[in-house]
Amino acid sequence: MQSVLEERKDLLERELAMMVGNSIELSDSELKANEIIMNLKHDEIQRGFLHPKQFNLSKHFFEYKDEVKKTKLFQIIQSMPKGAVLHAHDTGLLSPDYVLALTYWEDLWVCWTEDKSFTEFYFSKIIPAFPCDTEWELMSEARYASGDVEQFDADLRKHFTIVIDNPNEVYTDVNAVWQKFQQYFISTGNLFSYKPVYEQYYYDTLLEFRKDQVMYLEIRSTLQSLYDLDGNVFDAVETAVTYKRVTEKFMKDYPDFFGAKLIYAPLKLVDKATLQEYIRTALLIQRLMPDFLVGFDLVGQEDLGVPLREFLPELAEIREQLDLYLHAGETNWYGTASDENLFDAVVLGAKRIGHAFALTKHPLLMEEVKKRQIALEINVVSNSVLKLVQDPRNHPLATYLSQNMPVLLSSDDPGVWEALPMSHDFYVTFVAVASRHADLKLLKQLALNSLYYSSYPEKHKLVHAFEIRWTKFIDAIVKDKW
Amino acid sequence: MQSVLEERKDLLERELAMMVGNSIELSDSELKANEIIMNLKHDEIQRGFLHPKQFNLSKHFFEYKDEVKKTKLFQIIQSMPKGAVLHAHDTGLLSPDYVLALTYWEDLWVCWTEDKSFTEFYFSKIIPAFPCDTEWELMSEARYASGDVEQFDADLRKHFTIVIDNPNEVYTDVNAVWQKFQQYFISTGNLFSYKPVYEQYYYDTLLEFRKDQVMYLEIRSTLQSLYDLDGNVFDAVETAVTYKRVTEKFMKDYPDFFGAKLIYAPLKLVDKATLQEYIRTALLIQRLMPDFLVGFDLVGQEDLGVPLREFLPELAEIREQLDLYLHAGETNWYGTASDENLFDAVVLGAKRIGHAFALTKHPLLMEEVKKRQIALEINVVSNSVLKLVQDPRNHPLATYLSQNMPVLLSSDDPGVWEALPMSHDFYVTFVAVASRHADLKLLKQLALNSLYYSSYPEKHKLVHAFEIRWTKFIDAIVKDKW
Repeated sequence: MQSVLEERKDLLERELAMMVGNSIELSDSELKANEIIMNLKHDEIQRGFLHPKQFNLSKHFFEYKDEVKKTKLFQIIQSMPKGAVLHAHDTGLLSPDYVLALTYWEDLWVCWTEDKSFTEFYFSKIIPAFPCDTEWELMSEARYASGDVEQFDADLRKHFTIVIDNPNEVYTDVNAVWQKFQQYFISTGNLFSYKPVYEQYYYDTLLEFRKDQVMYLEIRSTLQSLYDLDGNVFDAVETAVTYKRVTEKFMKDYPDFFGAKLIYAPLKLVDKATLQEYIRTALLIQRLMPDFLVGFDLVGQEDLGVPLREFLPELAEIREQLDLYLHAGETNWYGTASDENLFDAVVLGAKRIGHAFALTKHPLLMEEVKKRQIALEINVVSNSVLKLVQDPRNHPLATYLSQNMPVLLSSDDPGVWEALPMSHDFYVTFVAVASRHADLKLLKQLALNSLYYSSYPEKHKLVHAFEIRWTKFIDAIVKDKW
Repeated sequence: MQSVLEERKDLLERELAMMVGNSIELSDSELKANEIIMNLKHDEIQRGFLHPKQFNLSKHFFEYKDEVKKTKLFQIIQSMPKGAVLHAHDTGLLSPDYVLALTYWEDLWVCWTEDKSFTEFYFSKIIPAFPCDTEWELMSEARYASGDVEQFDADLRKHFTIVIDNPNEVYTDVNAVWQKFQQYFISTGNLFSYKPVYEQYYYDTLLEFRKDQVMYLEIRSTLQSLYDLDGNVFDAVETAVTYKRVTEKFMKDYPDFFGAKLIYAPLKLVDKATLQEYIRTALLIQRLMPDFLVGFDLVGQEDLGVPLREFLPELAEIREQLDLYLHAGETNWYGTASDENLFDAVVLGAKRIGHAFALTKHPLLMEEVKKRQIALEINVVSNSVLKLVQDPRNHPLATYLSQNMPVLLSSDDPGVWEALPMSHDFYVTFVAVASRHADLKLLKQLALNSLYYSSYPEKHKLVHAFEIRWTKFIDAIVKDKW
């Protein structure tokens, strides 16, 4: 009997020691803060354990996203320094309210489909020359002609979010929700690609992320071409230049922010000629701003995209010059081309893998990922909203955390589902995905991982600045001042 | 580039070789059958991959359970020899139609609650002496007094199944569905515990399982006490004797069936005194029928049950005399007592673990389970219906299969959710959980595993008989005679 008890204790302890974060030693202040945090977490879990219906995080994200903000634990996590965001897409980052406000800008034209299910926008001094199903209207005129500005804006706002009241009925499957998700990007395409808007959107993205305690960003962008009122059209290179310039301006305005780098991530549902063109563009941008462009990726609904295997020769070529940060395994299929993109990402020597949702089904790749320290960019809320997993307690991140895989959290397109830049992803991970035992050490390690696995050239500076902020955060909790 | 291609191929091949079943070599006939089966499987997956909404197996089980029966692949799997069933509960095994037919037996009395939401039954020559919310009626009289026998039976049948039209609305969480599930057992308790019914139910269970190509059963039972019309009450020992006697009768009637063994599995939500009594009963039965009683377990909704840890001394004691086949980790929580029952099951040296749904979150326990060859009794359909996981593609079995964990399939309580004894569990596993590449080798290995990890004393005989049936099965496929 004694031996059984001892073995149980030994196994449990050894396993806890294997978890992400468990090599961290907490200071006395951290221990105090930890107690506060863990009491809140345990209360939350205990309630859910006894009354699973009341456990917010196993509902649909749309149902609980605002509700959880009221909790003290969420607010603590909100104030927590989160390190870097390494997996986030250009124009999916800000809230529908923000986008709605953009439609108040001057010279904006709008075109609806007959049934108002779809909009297009264009900034122009004169009526846009593009075809329109109905007719182009000046947004300001359409809004006031509507007679009810509030209702008009409420209707318009629906085009800028995938959040709806009855997601389980409407978003019946991955394709259904992806259709709405992609519609957002198509619909807002020319709203955002107006150069002044693009600059403002990105500047305000940095502002929002900084406010959510993010200190550095690696942004994936399709580098769509931009335009202005004078009829100029700017190509992908110019878009990259724009990112760099706005980043520099932002860093001047907010010197505590560590800036941003760019990952060129065009659409993956293309032919080889287009891919070749992407690669030429990437290399051109790299020549122009070698410190700013850090990598290459391909994006889009993975099940329906071209498998990486098809592009293996091209990707093997570009990786000689530019690092790869590849989406792979963003699927709940097993043994399909999308699932097996994970093999390509690994053999291509990707620096990080985006999502890697399917990786738990690949024991050998798990080993390789650990051995090669390929970081996994995990987007828990995104995977829930985009229908890969319903209950975050079944998210494979739990497995990755349990065996100290090189993981970091990110948020993909938080604006599109009305999440905060990073707080929701940290909260859901901490309360629903990670072990009940996972504590402040996990939170700290996840933030630190986002720095370690970033492309920032002087990581010790990042880490040093992070540590100072972390100490303040801990003090605030201990003094109950968060 | 060449090296990248080679490495990809090598990793993929090595990983496929790690899967459950991939050490099996297929004969020429098996290769032909495999081609037929894999074409059907690939068609099914391809359709779902392109149109996820049409993929039956990611809907609710109640929605697709009858639909899939029409497919050729299901029918092939239905005719496949499935080996043994090692995780199935006494009175949860037969369909509601079967149970309904039992209510036509003579001398049955029924008691409804006022709102007809709950029934109790009792067989008796005179009105039962137990209290009744309304009043005891003779079932035959109640049925004919109703005026509409068809409607009466349809209403009554609802008490014998948890299948409903709108499961996602009514069964909102684990507790909600478990409540209905437990109500089934409570409601039917005295219907089944009438000794003649109990005997018939078990005999017909063996018949149904045999029909679904099962050759041997290890049945878990709470060994409820039985009664007869003469006022006799029979205790757990007598119930065990009944199981043994009916098994022997069945084997005489069907000499191709390899019989059954008993795992005594009383309720786990009890105090220590009750556990002590269970253990005394178990050891008494073992003394009386050492070849028939093979093990001990505890059952009930795991999150709400007493953690195994509380019972560690008692379980450590009994395992010296009787093997343990423990439910553990039937939860989607992580780091809770229910999750950590997995530690107890492992250190107690359980021969097999029931469910082990949470095991993917325990890397060290995974290793131990492999090392000690503790078989995992996986119940995919049960875990979906009882709300641990929504989409079977996210079932942890996929991970276990990928790394050749000692797994076998079982069906828990298939009658209660109107599944076939084993065919649905095999079908869902094959098409939705396992890799797209997993083929006949997987199916064969899973069936073989159920024999290897059974307590049947002469396994070579089981395996030999299985191989003969398997060959016939293969021939039938090849000749398209299934």
